[in-house]
Amino acid sequence: MLENITGAQLKKMTLKELLALCEEAREIITRTVLKNGGHLSSNLGTVELSVALNYVFDFPKDKLVFDVGHQCYTHKLLTGRYFEFDTIRQKGGISGFPKRAESEYDCYNVGHAGTSVSAALGIAKARDINGENFNVIALIGDGSFNNGLIYEAFNSLRLLNTNILLILNDNGMSIAPTVGSMHEYLEILSEDITQKHKKDRHAKIFERFGFEYDGVYDGNDLEKMISKLEEIKEKLKTQSVILHVLTKKGKGYSFCEENPEVTHGITNSTEKVDEYSEILGKTLTRLAEKDKRIVAVTAAMTSSLGLSEFFEKYPDRSVDVGICEEHAAILCASMATEGLKPYYAVYSTFLQRSFDEIIIDICSQNLPVTLCIDRAGISGSDGETHQGVFDLSFLSFIPNLTIAVPKDISEFEKMLEFSAEFNAPLAIRYPRSGNKIFNKRDEILCGQWEKLTEGDGKYALIACGERAINCALNAESLLREKGVRLSVINACFVKPMDTETLDSLKEKFILTVEDNMLIGGLGSLINTYFSAENKIIKNFAYADDFIPQGGVSELMEELGLSAEKIVDYILTNENR
Amino acid sequence: MLENITGAQLKKMTLKELLALCEEAREIITRTVLKNGGHLSSNLGTVELSVALNYVFDFPKDKLVFDVGHQCYTHKLLTGRYFEFDTIRQKGGISGFPKRAESEYDCYNVGHAGTSVSAALGIAKARDINGENFNVIALIGDGSFNNGLIYEAFNSLRLLNTNILLILNDNGMSIAPTVGSMHEYLEILSEDITQKHKKDRHAKIFERFGFEYDGVYDGNDLEKMISKLEEIKEKLKTQSVILHVLTKKGKGYSFCEENPEVTHGITNSTEKVDEYSEILGKTLTRLAEKDKRIVAVTAAMTSSLGLSEFFEKYPDRSVDVGICEEHAAILCASMATEGLKPYYAVYSTFLQRSFDEIIIDICSQNLPVTLCIDRAGISGSDGETHQGVFDLSFLSFIPNLTIAVPKDISEFEKMLEFSAEFNAPLAIRYPRSGNKIFNKRDEILCGQWEKLTEGDGKYALIACGERAINCALNAESLLREKGVRLSVINACFVKPMDTETLDSLKEKFILTVEDNMLIGGLGSLINTYFSAENKIIKNFAYADDFIPQGGVSELMEELGLSAEKIVDYILTNENR
Repeated sequence: MLENITGAQLKKMTLKELLALCEEAREIITRTVLKNGGHLSSNLGTVELSVALNYVFDFPKDKLVFDVGHQCYTHKLLTGRYFEFDTIRQKGGISGFPKRAESEYDCYNVGHAGTSVSAALGIAKARDINGENFNVIALIGDGSFNNGLIYEAFNSLRLLNTNILLILNDNGMSIAPTVGSMHEYLEILSEDITQKHKKDRHAKIFERFGFEYDGVYDGNDLEKMISKLEEIKEKLKTQSVILHVLTKKGKGYSFCEENPEVTHGITNSTEKVDEYSEILGKTLTRLAEKDKRIVAVTAAMTSSLGLSEFFEKYPDRSVDVGICEEHAAILCASMATEGLKPYYAVYSTFLQRSFDEIIIDICSQNLPVTLCIDRAGISGSDGETHQGVFDLSFLSFIPNLTIAVPKDISEFEKMLEFSAEFNAPLAIRYPRSGNKIFNKRDEILCGQWEKLTEGDGKYALIACGERAINCALNAESLLREKGVRLSVINACFVKPMDTETLDSLKEKFILTVEDNMLIGGLGSLINTYFSAENKIIKNFAYADDFIPQGGVSELMEELGLSAEKIVDYILTNENR
Repeated sequence: MLENITGAQLKKMTLKELLALCEEAREIITRTVLKNGGHLSSNLGTVELSVALNYVFDFPKDKLVFDVGHQCYTHKLLTGRYFEFDTIRQKGGISGFPKRAESEYDCYNVGHAGTSVSAALGIAKARDINGENFNVIALIGDGSFNNGLIYEAFNSLRLLNTNILLILNDNGMSIAPTVGSMHEYLEILSEDITQKHKKDRHAKIFERFGFEYDGVYDGNDLEKMISKLEEIKEKLKTQSVILHVLTKKGKGYSFCEENPEVTHGITNSTEKVDEYSEILGKTLTRLAEKDKRIVAVTAAMTSSLGLSEFFEKYPDRSVDVGICEEHAAILCASMATEGLKPYYAVYSTFLQRSFDEIIIDICSQNLPVTLCIDRAGISGSDGETHQGVFDLSFLSFIPNLTIAVPKDISEFEKMLEFSAEFNAPLAIRYPRSGNKIFNKRDEILCGQWEKLTEGDGKYALIACGERAINCALNAESLLREKGVRLSVINACFVKPMDTETLDSLKEKFILTVEDNMLIGGLGSLINTYFSAENKIIKNFAYADDFIPQGGVSELMEELGLSAEKIVDYILTNENR
């Protein structure tokens, strides 16, 4: 039924037909995600809600703004993307997130938490300014609802003098179970709601900010969902409404229902496991045994960062604050003022949210906080909004910050040992998976690089991080066969740079390789170091553009980060 | 009395003596701020509160965390900084903000809004982990209370299982009058509080998050303040408390009481007026007359950004969201999706809070939002936490973003006209004051630089922004007298760069000048552009360190950004 469905057809369907449509969507989503990877249980939980929304509202005239976007698959199936659905998250395929360029039914791109209410308010305000007439709906999960942006948006609802429908999809989880007082409050609301007077008493918080509160506490009941949305649609003409919907994460697929955390994000079989995060967890747990100052802070990703064991073993020295990256960074800085040794583990892309706090709270106070930056470099199938390719650029100019980039999981372990003794701000950046151990090092010294191959004097390849080092060493071995010998240098600290080594390379042709944007990264730092010299440097890094979804290796190859490209460049240079 | 006062002496004083102390503090603060510049009315409002806090609590054993820090002067006077007080905000003098390096009574550095609750929680949590016993107090103004960080911190209070005292100093203003629903709620609380049952009904929001709510609605009454704090001190052993204190901004100085917005920040007489902000206001108001798509968004600084007239003239097309920089950026992005033309005006240092939203919401969607970045470059007396020297570095690597830097107020006006027709993300960065108009330009073309002097072939100085252009042109004129002729080029677009002009300079010795960090700024971009060439470039920009307080010119001079330094460098090079 889904194949060529239009909004007009959907609106003519009987309940029975709509229920069959839900089952069909559920089946396609499960099958596709198990093949391509993606967000499974959150999407299964919101099938009925998405069908009801498309049944009641008139998209694309009405606007549906997702938060993060882990629940947009059914909406995609219902709005013209049935035939491309099996390309989801693949290179050149449709996105796993809402994307304006893909469809007029996706009105706002998302990926990071908490933006939907602000975006819906902006769209509604623009509608009013333009004198238009349509409904604006934000759909947010209870995990994102912890983010400070929600409060900022709530606080300005009356100020903006406009109306939106905010649907709070409450499944009790972000990736991990949702934490915090707001979520406890939501539980109270949904438990007491059958008793009218209690609802009136409890729903005050939302009313203070200008929302009328309503709830559907069986959000997987399509009939109830439709009838409530129809009722609310009328109200929206004069009033903003928050609709609290309880859904079951993983609904309809028993393995998911029973394992919502593992099935939040499904990895397809060609992707590797999380070896760097395993090392983080194991090493930090070991170090914390001896060093009672060590504390770990996460923002709703404890398990995927490898820290479950640490959290179990040291519950008093670990905090998951929910999706609150700014707050997490300040907690670390302030705990450090009292002599603790905080580790803030976070994905590279989400660390962007802590940018100001890294500058002001951590680095301007020169506090010994260690940032463990996971999923650095190209992160793959999630696309533009999740690539970890900006971190070297947004960290390299911050005074007092040391930036370390391990070349393999073994060096990462050594760096964590180094970090425990290091008494200043430190960032350690690493990709998701570790494929190779290049060597075992005895000791890490701050700002000291490692020469991996000797070379014959002409070329020096300076690279940082496993992927770049791998390109460099593969290029070295391909060129060795052709009689060209490269020095390959592991720039395991991007800051401070090893100026002694750099000075020893003055006579060489330097090539830099990194899994980061060219602007502001390792190559840029080296270019600037040598700016006052007559010196040729060739940089391999990502050009000034957003990087779409795709496999890590295929994207790196396409963007010019490969052994072959390095070899080609050097051979062309040799023959010039 | 204040001269050599200690905490022990303070605790022995009679109420009468304490009141005299308040008057003395008020007098010193007024006198000093009128001379040195600084935050006047917020500090006058919190004299009694500060005396009461120091009377009741035992600093530095107990910890007092300020929010932003616009209310720390009395605390400084009471804790050993009486004799240095007249150096406040001057180069080498004491800071206008709390500063750990300055005194053990300043336990946490601040400057940007909303951090105090998170920091107090981190300190309290560390205290618990370390098995220590002291009180932790956060002091926040109602303006900062709008920031999303507050919600993130509130949401984790129970989770962290620790106790703090949060004092909400409510004077109805941040710099501008406080906006938003939370503030309306605070008004209801303070109005109804005398009726016990109403308090119980209303204070629910704070109780939900784990705070007991209490209030002192005449926060300038020292006796009441002391007795309430003594009562609460007992409770803190088992409970977190939020104490809502109403104070009068500018208390005790009638001109301030009547003009709290103008007297929030006092500028000393040697500083110039805000000419760039005047141009912004005038030009945007004029452009908005014809172009109904233009909207303006600010985050609690409408007047100091020059936008008061715009807001008065176009109330439906202007929004001040309070101190919510993230939300402001998303509002702009989302309004742009509906065809509007949003201008987000903000200080450079506070734009750091919108970093992630600039990448994801504005630039990855390639939306025509214009960032008007005021107080760029060295901002002066506020010191480390307020310098605008990072913006080129944190913007230059963001794809899709065009970065413009006008060389004077006349060019700024032209750039705003240019921006109205420009259909992609645009950042325009400018300092507070405009001192000079170098020339009047007819037209601004995207990415096209301007040659200001011809030179004789050897040296090219590429500079951006009024201050750097001024150094460059002064150097040019000093060197002309010595027979050395420079080409001075106005890099009015830092991105995209004018590659045609750059290519024409291949044979020249290039010098770059900018009022920004070296790493990631204009100089770095040019170094990287020429990395594959045998070419010498000399960069004048700020080295990798935080920049303390001081006068703009004296700091620039000291940090190597002056005509003399450029002249010296070139003459040394000539004689080599």
